[in-house]
Amino acid sequence: MKIALAQINPTVGDIPANSAKIKQFIARSRDEGAELVIFSELSLIGYPPKDLLLKHRFIDDNLAALDDIARYCSDCAALIGFACRHRGPAGRNLHNAAALLTQGRVLATYYKQLLPSYDIFDETRYFEPAKSQQVVNFAEHRLGLTICEDIWQGPQGAVRPLYEDNPLAQLAASGVDIIINISASPFEMGKHAFRCELFSAQCRRYHLPLLYVNQVGGNDELIFDGCSCAFDKDGQIFAQAKDFQEDLILVDLDNLPAARIEETKTDVAAVHAALTLGLKDYVEKCRFQSVVIGLSGGIDSAVTAALAVTALGPQRVIGVALPSRYNAPASIADARRLADNLGIRLLTVPIEKPFTAFLELLQPHFGSLPPDITEENIQARIRAVILMALSNKFGHLLLTTGNKSELAVGYCTIYGDMAGGLAVISDVPKTMIYQLARYINRDKELIPSSSINKPPSAELRENQCDQDSLPPYDTLDEILHRYVEQEQSQAEIIAAGFDPQIVSHVINLVDRNEYKRKQAAPGLKVTSRAFGTGRRMPIAQNYHPR
Amino acid sequence: MKIALAQINPTVGDIPANSAKIKQFIARSRDEGAELVIFSELSLIGYPPKDLLLKHRFIDDNLAALDDIARYCSDCAALIGFACRHRGPAGRNLHNAAALLTQGRVLATYYKQLLPSYDIFDETRYFEPAKSQQVVNFAEHRLGLTICEDIWQGPQGAVRPLYEDNPLAQLAASGVDIIINISASPFEMGKHAFRCELFSAQCRRYHLPLLYVNQVGGNDELIFDGCSCAFDKDGQIFAQAKDFQEDLILVDLDNLPAARIEETKTDVAAVHAALTLGLKDYVEKCRFQSVVIGLSGGIDSAVTAALAVTALGPQRVIGVALPSRYNAPASIADARRLADNLGIRLLTVPIEKPFTAFLELLQPHFGSLPPDITEENIQARIRAVILMALSNKFGHLLLTTGNKSELAVGYCTIYGDMAGGLAVISDVPKTMIYQLARYINRDKELIPSSSINKPPSAELRENQCDQDSLPPYDTLDEILHRYVEQEQSQAEIIAAGFDPQIVSHVINLVDRNEYKRKQAAPGLKVTSRAFGTGRRMPIAQNYHPR
Repeated sequence: MKIALAQINPTVGDIPANSAKIKQFIARSRDEGAELVIFSELSLIGYPPKDLLLKHRFIDDNLAALDDIARYCSDCAALIGFACRHRGPAGRNLHNAAALLTQGRVLATYYKQLLPSYDIFDETRYFEPAKSQQVVNFAEHRLGLTICEDIWQGPQGAVRPLYEDNPLAQLAASGVDIIINISASPFEMGKHAFRCELFSAQCRRYHLPLLYVNQVGGNDELIFDGCSCAFDKDGQIFAQAKDFQEDLILVDLDNLPAARIEETKTDVAAVHAALTLGLKDYVEKCRFQSVVIGLSGGIDSAVTAALAVTALGPQRVIGVALPSRYNAPASIADARRLADNLGIRLLTVPIEKPFTAFLELLQPHFGSLPPDITEENIQARIRAVILMALSNKFGHLLLTTGNKSELAVGYCTIYGDMAGGLAVISDVPKTMIYQLARYINRDKELIPSSSINKPPSAELRENQCDQDSLPPYDTLDEILHRYVEQEQSQAEIIAAGFDPQIVSHVINLVDRNEYKRKQAAPGLKVTSRAFGTGRRMPIAQNYHPR
Repeated sequence: MKIALAQINPTVGDIPANSAKIKQFIARSRDEGAELVIFSELSLIGYPPKDLLLKHRFIDDNLAALDDIARYCSDCAALIGFACRHRGPAGRNLHNAAALLTQGRVLATYYKQLLPSYDIFDETRYFEPAKSQQVVNFAEHRLGLTICEDIWQGPQGAVRPLYEDNPLAQLAASGVDIIINISASPFEMGKHAFRCELFSAQCRRYHLPLLYVNQVGGNDELIFDGCSCAFDKDGQIFAQAKDFQEDLILVDLDNLPAARIEETKTDVAAVHAALTLGLKDYVEKCRFQSVVIGLSGGIDSAVTAALAVTALGPQRVIGVALPSRYNAPASIADARRLADNLGIRLLTVPIEKPFTAFLELLQPHFGSLPPDITEENIQARIRAVILMALSNKFGHLLLTTGNKSELAVGYCTIYGDMAGGLAVISDVPKTMIYQLARYINRDKELIPSSSINKPPSAELRENQCDQDSLPPYDTLDEILHRYVEQEQSQAEIIAAGFDPQIVSHVINLVDRNEYKRKQAAPGLKVTSRAFGTGRRMPIAQNYHPR
């Protein structure tokens, strides 16, 4: 039996467009001789649909679209993810479901059993879990259908399992020939390798082949990398879809192995591809034509601009230099050189006049108080006013250029450089920004080497340097990784060999800048724990671990 | 047996301060002759602790504090909410728990059985539910312990229950004398009356008295109203704690009825009290000394300032008038009069100079394009730069003054009037702002009547009026209530008699302004559905219901 794995990029909520895309992929699969084509989790509505799921009409619309697609399935069956009403006597209103459509009708419906409610996942907000799974008989095969988390129960038992049930074990015990898993599993660094290892181990444990179909594309903070795979019962991958783009691959269950296997990217190449896709999809799914970026001559805005050009092309990217009295002439030159290298338009809007106007206006109220962070923030906020004015007048989406290290410790100005619709690199630690810059320059120098090599500075006062008030970025990033991503305590981080005063200072900065992150733009997630939906901290709190 | 209900205002994460407060209330209860004192849900760590619960050290600290309090409990036992580690073979790491402390030790521990995961609640992110409840024998009574949601399964069965289990029914079947419920149940309009009706019905259904202890105080978006109550087995309230403040009341189980019953406030009085408490607690739990508010002469900023003065006193509130070329002289006069009436300091910072500077700076880029929303937003953003400069220089918290109707349809400027640390009235519809203003003026005119009576205007261009681009606020608020709070579809709202074009326009505005709300300040929740944590919408989506 030939089965097609359809790795599509749905738009959240766009049921007509997603349906049309699904029909196209069904037609292609049929034309290529497939008897069954498998789509990803909630493929009809896009993942994550969030509180659209609370709209009754939205559920009705997705059910109507499912019926419509069923009528379209004549020669080739399709397995499609959708939101199904829960009809039981008690529980939440919906199931995260998959329907097997064939011969114009819904042959069978299956519900997700393990519902993640950690990190960015909120599935217990909407869905009622299935209590068990049943085997599907289709074309002389016994299919074990599962949805994403259902096959993530660790086979080794090294850590305590998160769920009591193990759908995979149940299905294996029921005697299936093959496991099918439809997923919406977001990208993070190392995740593809982790998935492959886990899935391979599951195949070996249960002596079953596995067809895994993942979503691809960016939806707000999340980037889905695709990388759909087919594993044989020894856990060997025998077919793999492309990463970070739509794809359709065919596997022949009666004639393994087949198809191609993609090379795995390095971390930095994968992050580059992920950010490019996440940026492109955010811009296009929000229906913007172009983006605008403030170019400081520094590495962060340079990397952001280079990513935007890769995602959208140079015609759709506008750079703006916003020099102040504190900017080194070399910074402006670097911004100019970057724009030339990327082939993008560069506007120059010096901020001295409004800066002077604000200082004069505030002088009667500030009196003889010495300059401090206030005057620095005013400059960052003037830049935001100008960039947002260009955004408002011409309809460009403003991209923010802050990295994760800065956002963590609050080394950024709320309503200033934090202003913008998408924070492209806000989950990329500063040390990785350097790797990205070198990767972007791998063939030729796009980002000026002076932007990469000079000591980082916000240039908001005379002779300012990031490292005046922050520890070196390699130290900072290690501490942040332990504190934010690994949830280590202050004591644990110090025990790992870091200076106690520095650790205490960094943790204090992270905690007291929660209010800034509460109002941050959505940021593309590429680590195991990004600021945003996956990290929900109170603001008015007073926990000070020692 | 005398039991004390301790209605405390914990600070999230401040385990030492919460422990000290709990000990004080234990001492007071003992002094008043109580054998047992009952505290609210997660009282030791404050509700909602959010992702602080993911920190191992935080859990350790809360367990150590519990042991410490146990050693303090000699003559009077205490029931205290805390986070307990889950030791079972599978599942999430924690239980939402209550410990009965007596004679220096933990006599028994109970786990919450029904875990809410809707609206602002995320309990399935952290907690494993208990599978059943057991009766506690204490001082010749058989106590049925429950935590918040555990007693919210509707007794009538009118709607499908959200959970399969019914802890109250289980406990009643086990033969308890009394139900104890410890809660952290946030305020919303009408919630107290709803709770009383529900709890009364539960008492009648199971022929059991109920002691209900709720948290009080503001924690970020949420305001807990207290209103702890004691019900007899006929569902009559025989004792009630104060609303919106800490309280300790004693009930004598062997000698009902006793104590006092508070009067229920009207909706507007309750919202006023709730916002006052929420504002005060946010300011103080974030350790600010003072607040700053831009005063336009309009009703929204006037109501916000009056609330701030009630919460903090006039010395801690600074008003700033920021007149532009488009402000009517009467608006400045109204701001002046308001400041005088409230007894607060008023700074005046005209925005003409930076406005001119920005227009000149942008002219080469804008060319001959006509003025539009861009120039309006520039003014709002200049005001934000000035207000944030005052905040930065003097340490005031900036309060935003936008109402729910504006925030819903995006009639507000991101990084402009949306800038600030707390959105005091962002969950109050415009029509209720008028009620609040009249309530604030109930004894004497604090808010100038001209601010209340003039047609609302943003005054960002000549002769602008809100109603030029929006439907009348009473119509708008009704549509928004149906769409946002009740999740009605466009078709349903039109079927209720509203103009199809207006409904379509309003829904479109709500949907396409999600990006602004994503970056909004935390806003105090007073309705059944506030923007913020309780409404999680995708931004890059394309659902257009018809």
